[in-house]
Amino acid sequence: MIAGKLIGVGTGPGDPELLTMKAVIRIVAAEVIAYPTLADRDSFARSIVEQHIPTGAREIRVEVPMSVEREPAQLAYDTGAAEISAVLSAGTDVVFLCEGDPLFYGSFMYLLDRLCPDFDVEVVPGITSFTAATASLALPLVSRNDILAVIPGPIDSEQLKTRISSSDATIIMKVGRHLPKIRDAIDALGLLEHATYVERASLSAERTMPLSEAPESAPYFSMILVTKGSDPWLKNR
Amino acid sequence: MIAGKLIGVGTGPGDPELLTMKAVIRIVAAEVIAYPTLADRDSFARSIVEQHIPTGAREIRVEVPMSVEREPAQLAYDTGAAEISAVLSAGTDVVFLCEGDPLFYGSFMYLLDRLCPDFDVEVVPGITSFTAATASLALPLVSRNDILAVIPGPIDSEQLKTRISSSDATIIMKVGRHLPKIRDAIDALGLLEHATYVERASLSAERTMPLSEAPESAPYFSMILVTKGSDPWLKNR
Repeated sequence: MIAGKLIGVGTGPGDPELLTMKAVIRIVAAEVIAYPTLADRDSFARSIVEQHIPTGAREIRVEVPMSVEREPAQLAYDTGAAEISAVLSAGTDVVFLCEGDPLFYGSFMYLLDRLCPDFDVEVVPGITSFTAATASLALPLVSRNDILAVIPGPIDSEQLKTRISSSDATIIMKVGRHLPKIRDAIDALGLLEHATYVERASLSAERTMPLSEAPESAPYFSMILVTKGSDPWLKNR
Repeated sequence: MIAGKLIGVGTGPGDPELLTMKAVIRIVAAEVIAYPTLADRDSFARSIVEQHIPTGAREIRVEVPMSVEREPAQLAYDTGAAEISAVLSAGTDVVFLCEGDPLFYGSFMYLLDRLCPDFDVEVVPGITSFTAATASLALPLVSRNDILAVIPGPIDSEQLKTRISSSDATIIMKVGRHLPKIRDAIDALGLLEHATYVERASLSAERTMPLSEAPESAPYFSMILVTKGSDPWLKNR
């Protein structure tokens, strides 16, 4: 008996047209599809690829509790990994869906960590939300010898200031309730006019605006882009 | 007369299956397709999408000279922008192809900079080479509150060390002839065992290996990944 393969598929930021051809090829061929979701809620990753899921495919929901404690989520990944492991052991591949890119702040890594030593793995990269955001804005992010920093929103204010001031461009992910702290840090650096707020990049509900006009309370799927740029040949940044 | 739209399309890192659905939709509908290329050479971006280019589409080659001086390349973008501008002014859209993502170290930005104030622009994001590289390696890049730095290879050694030591993960792009300098910097930090070398990610000629085993001379399309990770729930990084 040849064991099945764990296939982590990046679904991109939300627009179904931002799926790669390879992601669609893997999904339409899937017998078993797994994805993370909050209990009693629809999975965002699943909603992006819904039109490609074959009729009759088995679906495995990995129900991850919303909690600041990390242990309950890790127990949920244990349970999901056990269920997926049983399918793989029986010789069937499992496609695990993941918003954005599976290895870039993606939940797929917690499954990979539990299953990788025992099973073959394939990863299909996905469009990250930050490239979807710069695309929507037609905003040059980095060119030439620019340095980019990618920072999660929960990072403390001093760290934020250090990173932003020492980079040509900065992406702050998972902004959510951290927005006021981040805005104040950027303002303190005198960079407010270089900062843009983006929520739900690539979705029909997408909103983009200068950070100075952003709401006090942001959704989890929001980010802030700071672009200073060092390339004298790009004049309109 | 309604002017045409400039459409910057990211072709991804090289594997044609890593094109997005949206990229394919825009290319198959194109009357005019433009792309950067070295003089007398095939365009890499064009080669990725070749099977989707409609018969009879007009092609505009933007021939960018290989030179350490920046002015000759900028003159080539002036010439290309003028040719594209004439097509747009006559009411026809132009699809401009760009390896990877158009706004992430992409040559598209030099066209955008020249044409954006005058014409409507759409950007289709592409898979970046670094997510293709981590996918090939099934290597968790960043999770949770990890900080990522993206650095071009030409950066000096001290800057490299500062960035790598202060980040949870670092991507060094455009390695090429800078490989020995970068390897020495990573070795000096005691991080050689955390560093991986990848060339031509996602292409059939892709090669990946520990940085300690990498060749002295690397092609332009090569990168180094340093992953330390701060997430105690990822044990196998």
